[in-house]
Amino acid sequence: MKKYNVAIVGATGAVGQELLKVLAERNFPVGELRLLASARSAGKVISYQGQEYTIGLTDEKAFAGIDIALFAGGSASTEFAQAAVEAGAVVIDNSSAFRMHPEVPLVVPEVNPEDVDWHKGIIANPNCSTIIMAVALKPLHDAAGIERVVVSTYQAVSGAGKEGITELTEQTSQVLRGEPVKPNVFAHPIAFNLIPHIDVFQDGDYTKEEWKMIKETRKIMHEADMRITATTVRVPVYRSHSESINIEFKRKITAAEAKEVLANASGVIVIDDVQNKQYPMPLYTSDKDEVFVGRIREDLSIDKGLNLWVVADQIRKGAATNAVQIAETLIQRKRI
Amino acid sequence: MKKYNVAIVGATGAVGQELLKVLAERNFPVGELRLLASARSAGKVISYQGQEYTIGLTDEKAFAGIDIALFAGGSASTEFAQAAVEAGAVVIDNSSAFRMHPEVPLVVPEVNPEDVDWHKGIIANPNCSTIIMAVALKPLHDAAGIERVVVSTYQAVSGAGKEGITELTEQTSQVLRGEPVKPNVFAHPIAFNLIPHIDVFQDGDYTKEEWKMIKETRKIMHEADMRITATTVRVPVYRSHSESINIEFKRKITAAEAKEVLANASGVIVIDDVQNKQYPMPLYTSDKDEVFVGRIREDLSIDKGLNLWVVADQIRKGAATNAVQIAETLIQRKRI
Repeated sequence: MKKYNVAIVGATGAVGQELLKVLAERNFPVGELRLLASARSAGKVISYQGQEYTIGLTDEKAFAGIDIALFAGGSASTEFAQAAVEAGAVVIDNSSAFRMHPEVPLVVPEVNPEDVDWHKGIIANPNCSTIIMAVALKPLHDAAGIERVVVSTYQAVSGAGKEGITELTEQTSQVLRGEPVKPNVFAHPIAFNLIPHIDVFQDGDYTKEEWKMIKETRKIMHEADMRITATTVRVPVYRSHSESINIEFKRKITAAEAKEVLANASGVIVIDDVQNKQYPMPLYTSDKDEVFVGRIREDLSIDKGLNLWVVADQIRKGAATNAVQIAETLIQRKRI
Repeated sequence: MKKYNVAIVGATGAVGQELLKVLAERNFPVGELRLLASARSAGKVISYQGQEYTIGLTDEKAFAGIDIALFAGGSASTEFAQAAVEAGAVVIDNSSAFRMHPEVPLVVPEVNPEDVDWHKGIIANPNCSTIIMAVALKPLHDAAGIERVVVSTYQAVSGAGKEGITELTEQTSQVLRGEPVKPNVFAHPIAFNLIPHIDVFQDGDYTKEEWKMIKETRKIMHEADMRITATTVRVPVYRSHSESINIEFKRKITAAEAKEVLANASGVIVIDDVQNKQYPMPLYTSDKDEVFVGRIREDLSIDKGLNLWVVADQIRKGAATNAVQIAETLIQRKRI
């Protein structure tokens, strides 16, 4: 079996670490593994699969001989993705830098695997909330045609990386001890609170996170006019994003039909046995690769509508797993 | 000024305690104050406004001479509300027992104060999430006519009473110490988790909480056919319910118009200055009587839509404050 030299850029962060785990779990055919990071982490030694790796510095020369460069996110993408492409690598980029670029495919392998075919060196990994929603929407769109989506999110603190996790733990301990709380990563205290604000505010007083869910979903689904509105909210949960999704369809689809369609969909697990109190929850979907869908109900306020409750680990399927699946799709479709 | 003899049934619970606070804060014209509870609490002595009160047992004979009986909720309402009415009291009931009864007004004073006029002894206090939503919807309905509502809630643990608060604290401490968590009040662990399930499951796999938001809102608004769909979710927040509300209108209303309408509405405070990161959050709305509205945006997926983020203390405006306001409305309208 052919092996591929893989670089991970941002190997020491939350997504970088998860990329390492996912490559190993999925037995990705890794030849050389090169772990890169910024000057702050370069030189550190980390242990992985029984071997020691020294973190290299991400710079223009770091990509020689690399086949696949997995960028975990952040400013390294705009600085070094082009250098990686010029060195002959295919870049799979988890940052938002290239997602809406017309010459960059934006791919969720369960939704639009064929888009890897036209890559010009960079393939973008979508926003985490967007990936999770797209996996749940696609089979329903194929079955009944989506007319409009209203989504409200419940997003975990690890969406802001390791620092988000630390901040929730520290603030929670402080509140329980009756001590004051000082926000750092998030704009306001997150312990025992909700913050209806993720990323910066943009047009129409929507956040960038909300716009990503609208624009990226349209690009992934190849539906430039799909009607979507979003409200994104940070919640005091460590891991796994949840989404309350209301969908209006072109054709009638019953809850029973929707359950069957979703149960047969790639990458989806239906948990929907309300009499036995079974529905997706972030505590039980973390460290899993699938998108979990439950509370599947007909929306009785319209003729052709459904409500869904969708939960998935945003560091796995929302980032690392999706990136590795893109690499697998490249190999399967012989585009690398 | 005329004074009224007031009984509080369930005086030792979370809502009962809040009723005492609200009566004092609002200088309600209390004559005799009679605190009642079940056998478990009867006989206890509690201190209130510098006086000591012995908790009496709630029974058929407990309401002699009472003008206003505030029932905090639970099974006491079905057992003893009729006895209180027969003893000559007006019952303001926070349970769900009578809310949908055609001969019982269901009242949010900012929305339908005139409904107290036709009471026959019992006036029902709506569900907490419903009250909060109705206060925000009513001025917008008057301005532009509501066609359809899609609401997703983020509900605090104190909606399940003092036991819900204790459970969140205990489980959170256990998780931070790395200990296992055992759910008791809630169906699943609530610390660092979300539970998309409040109250029991009913028709169409909607929870009773979701049906309350649909049916009670229609009754309060006198719009029997108003199209509403709801998804209700428990979140690890101590106090104040939050709601992501999407509204489709009959007539176009801009975000600027909506902000003005809401800023002038009774019982509403607009917090919507996103450039300065100002929006409602549960941590800052607790112990307040108003309904806080922010993130007011035009829904660009339809011609005549808005998104709102609404937060309010569900023990205050969602229960105790609304009940005392109903009593005040009875006095103002000379219906007692």
